[in-house]
Amino acid sequence: MKKIFFFVLALCSLYAGAQQADRFPLHQFDELIDTKPHDDATVWEQLKQTACFSWGSTDVRYRKLDVPDISRKSSLRLKGWRGERVNAQAVLWTKADLGKVRIEVSDLTNGKHRIPASAVKAGFVRYVMTDELNKDGQGGCGHRPNKADWDSSLVADMIDINLELPVKARTTQPVWMNVWIPSDSQPGIYRGKLSVSGEKLAKQSLVFEIKVSNRVLPAPADWKMYVDLWQNPYAVARYYQVPLWSKEHFDAMRPIMRMLADAGQRTITASIMHKPWAGQTQDHYDSMIFRMKQLDGTWKFDYTVFDKWVDFMMNEVGIDDLISCYTMVPWDLKFDYYDQATNRVLFVEAKPVDRAYADYWGTFLKDFARHLKAKGWFEKTAISMDERPLKDMQEAIKVVKAADPGFKIMLAGNYHAEIQSDLYYLCIPYGQVFPQEVKAERERKGQISTYYTCCTEAFPNVFTFSSPAEAAWTAIHAVAGGYDGYLRWSTMSWPLDPLRDSRFRTWAAGDTYCLYPGPRSSIRFERLVEGLQCCEKILLLREELTRRKATRALDKLNRLVGNFMPGNSTAKTAAAVVNELNDYVNSL
Amino acid sequence: MKKIFFFVLALCSLYAGAQQADRFPLHQFDELIDTKPHDDATVWEQLKQTACFSWGSTDVRYRKLDVPDISRKSSLRLKGWRGERVNAQAVLWTKADLGKVRIEVSDLTNGKHRIPASAVKAGFVRYVMTDELNKDGQGGCGHRPNKADWDSSLVADMIDINLELPVKARTTQPVWMNVWIPSDSQPGIYRGKLSVSGEKLAKQSLVFEIKVSNRVLPAPADWKMYVDLWQNPYAVARYYQVPLWSKEHFDAMRPIMRMLADAGQRTITASIMHKPWAGQTQDHYDSMIFRMKQLDGTWKFDYTVFDKWVDFMMNEVGIDDLISCYTMVPWDLKFDYYDQATNRVLFVEAKPVDRAYADYWGTFLKDFARHLKAKGWFEKTAISMDERPLKDMQEAIKVVKAADPGFKIMLAGNYHAEIQSDLYYLCIPYGQVFPQEVKAERERKGQISTYYTCCTEAFPNVFTFSSPAEAAWTAIHAVAGGYDGYLRWSTMSWPLDPLRDSRFRTWAAGDTYCLYPGPRSSIRFERLVEGLQCCEKILLLREELTRRKATRALDKLNRLVGNFMPGNSTAKTAAAVVNELNDYVNSL
Repeated sequence: MKKIFFFVLALCSLYAGAQQADRFPLHQFDELIDTKPHDDATVWEQLKQTACFSWGSTDVRYRKLDVPDISRKSSLRLKGWRGERVNAQAVLWTKADLGKVRIEVSDLTNGKHRIPASAVKAGFVRYVMTDELNKDGQGGCGHRPNKADWDSSLVADMIDINLELPVKARTTQPVWMNVWIPSDSQPGIYRGKLSVSGEKLAKQSLVFEIKVSNRVLPAPADWKMYVDLWQNPYAVARYYQVPLWSKEHFDAMRPIMRMLADAGQRTITASIMHKPWAGQTQDHYDSMIFRMKQLDGTWKFDYTVFDKWVDFMMNEVGIDDLISCYTMVPWDLKFDYYDQATNRVLFVEAKPVDRAYADYWGTFLKDFARHLKAKGWFEKTAISMDERPLKDMQEAIKVVKAADPGFKIMLAGNYHAEIQSDLYYLCIPYGQVFPQEVKAERERKGQISTYYTCCTEAFPNVFTFSSPAEAAWTAIHAVAGGYDGYLRWSTMSWPLDPLRDSRFRTWAAGDTYCLYPGPRSSIRFERLVEGLQCCEKILLLREELTRRKATRALDKLNRLVGNFMPGNSTAKTAAAVVNELNDYVNSL
Repeated sequence: MKKIFFFVLALCSLYAGAQQADRFPLHQFDELIDTKPHDDATVWEQLKQTACFSWGSTDVRYRKLDVPDISRKSSLRLKGWRGERVNAQAVLWTKADLGKVRIEVSDLTNGKHRIPASAVKAGFVRYVMTDELNKDGQGGCGHRPNKADWDSSLVADMIDINLELPVKARTTQPVWMNVWIPSDSQPGIYRGKLSVSGEKLAKQSLVFEIKVSNRVLPAPADWKMYVDLWQNPYAVARYYQVPLWSKEHFDAMRPIMRMLADAGQRTITASIMHKPWAGQTQDHYDSMIFRMKQLDGTWKFDYTVFDKWVDFMMNEVGIDDLISCYTMVPWDLKFDYYDQATNRVLFVEAKPVDRAYADYWGTFLKDFARHLKAKGWFEKTAISMDERPLKDMQEAIKVVKAADPGFKIMLAGNYHAEIQSDLYYLCIPYGQVFPQEVKAERERKGQISTYYTCCTEAFPNVFTFSSPAEAAWTAIHAVAGGYDGYLRWSTMSWPLDPLRDSRFRTWAAGDTYCLYPGPRSSIRFERLVEGLQCCEKILLLREELTRRKATRALDKLNRLVGNFMPGNSTAKTAAAVVNELNDYVNSL
């Protein structure tokens, strides 16, 4: 009726701006350009051979535009337990354009025994843009609004799933190989071949052997290490451009989440409110639970999304140890609900000491407990928090216990003697320790005590520019420090263009993910799994050596594990101590 | 866990910023200061008497700081039908401060017959800030972002409910009086007294008489005129600072909505989507219906708010003719729903020709029809629209009919021959006419055909600066133009500070309301009711005169009514033609 009007301020849709199909590539894509100084044509032309292929080291991120510093090796000896995944890296470098190149892996043979080529994953290592630590060298926390303020460069990190890749003149193209030794393999030495060939490249092959021990590494689901690598379903929906919680969304998530399951993942990351971390990631988490404040003031809860997510993780992915529900104490104490009266998502603003807080959470938790019990999940659920002021956490714990004293509670935060006994699962930062008697008491009570790293650490970390061995080091530190496991807050909180650019508006590059869309693994993820496997091996060997009273071997093992404590290693020595430990473990 | 984070972009709450209790006064308040030139002390000191009290005219907005141009009158003769409300205005002006002043009204007596004082409402007329027509004198549409661009001044408009008011030196203070003659009064001449007295004012009284006709004006609910004055429950909730749809909200709305019922109001304004008018008013309308798009893609609807509002209007207020549901064709074609997957209110963006539009509306309308039938309201409900491109309206009508061919449809917009027959209720703009045969056909079919004014008209209008008689003129035009009634899109879409400042960010001041918080009436509203009463009287007299074959009187009546057509009156002559008609009607 009015001729003049105001436009509705449209609420941003989750997929706003995600219109171009090639904005979020899943298949072929071009890497960004590295503008750093690199070996020029003169250097490259000194190569005697047009294209070289050699075994390299898994400790090195080979530079894309430099001739690699490698003593050429055409054969490689690896060792592994049955059931273990073993990594190797080969490098192809060329002065001429090779056209499209393909990788080929043979079956591994040991007389009449065989490890089929299907147990081997080999992929091109791809280059993503990274940045650097904070200018003071102290970790990677803080805002990075202006990318130009940070020294950026391309680094080798992602392990591609594309079978073919164009390899241009004067480039280095690494190839990552991972052999998952079947648990039922016959011990012995297996020999195989890794080859590359291309449109302009005659086939070149490298041989390798794996000495398979008679020891067996249990399946990841049976690992002792408590692994907690947070999932972000919201990032997957955005990058894959599929509706949240649709069949397509679950189809996209299934292989990603199975990669975590294969790394021994125990927990399901569930968000029980809007923006539990204040929207710090590119794709914020939202509430998996629908709360309606009805006209009569009563609350109505709906668990459809939560149930679907948990069911999927438990029954399709096989991660079923704990549903970790974030959070009752977010940074910004605002709690969402759909308000029937106003037809909006509104927020209760309340501190944990407030009556409104206890009303909001208490009412919900009672209903949540009822629902979880009906689903048979109550014992597998923790109400989880991040570090907040002690008083707030204490008040939140009171509210949880008042709703149902049986609720498990989890904290990823500083060690607080005042509340530790209330925490079924307590994960403290790198560098903090559990008092010995507390740890023992927690073990007796079946409580979980782990540690985490995040942007804080310059070393050890899994930024895209971190030394590859640091990922393994990080895992092994859990055993060295006497923790039950390791937590990382991000594995797939992708920045906008994760395949090409690992930098983000906050924190050093790569902090928010180590799995790539596709899904694709990374040097960091493979080395983390290597470290986690090493932990299991150490724990098993300790038992065995203790049982066998092999004191000397046990002492040596523990001495080498002792390198994995703060102060005993640096980014520079990480590879050496990991290799030394690996070698010793594999020698036993 | 992260030390650095982003603040949640908080969604604005309905009550954001409305923290100060005195921001939205309901009782005493101070008027704004009029900075226009006005009579100075010299002029005021010429008054022989310190304080004067006289009958004035209901056609005049007396200026607050000027000595009124009045021939002093201490008695007044009024006429009215039984059941009619009769207005008068008195004026008090003073050179000295009078302290707090009170109004007193006596019973009206006619020998042993009596109209009790309780049938008389007398209140101080208060001054609000107004602006002016557009600079070209053509109506009051358009944005007015900068108040300084418009000539603003205080005008007498609101009729206060406060019993006491301080009256300062050198001010004019009008008093409005309204006598609702009881329907069962004995015809005859009743005499009463209107008095003022104050802390520094000895009582002064004015006498008046009302000649009560033996004719009876029916109760508003039985009026023939189809009155449609839109309600805005959202504005009431904000101004009264009460939660939407709470008991306090309904308590606040009850007396306001009853003022509309007493003006013959027929329709309940219901909003069936978020911002049916793109949030053009200070307090936007929201959806009274909850729509959830469930995870499985199906829709769920909840009518709790809608039902509560309609129940209230029907059963507590007595407005029960039609539930007018806006809108399927808003200016901005975005349709809200709560999305279970993303925990947000999202929008379907779709044009009426789109499949998504038919899905959204078709699914809803089928369920809505089912619900309305269950409530016994289906026959009383219209799916209502404002003027949109013809093609869009045609498509929308198709969707409505496909959902349920029995749905009534309403349009407030231009006359379109192509769709008029589909429209149970069609309200066209001032100046447009229904072709005679169409109007006759619509009457036969029981269809409603009315007209509206909005910001477009310089005359007639009910801006706060409009001549008071224009409100009556507007109503009478409905009868003159052969319409079934009158629609106004706003009666309580209050700007931020409606008691003091009637200006708004769009349109000439006062366009958005004629009822004030309190609730308080206004010169405009009382004169509109006067006009509506006059309509009823004309319709009854036409019948009677026709029946009595009193051709001469009927001709004169129709000639005087003929003044109420475009071109036959101006703002300057409106008072004269209204008075002439009133006088003649009351003489019959």
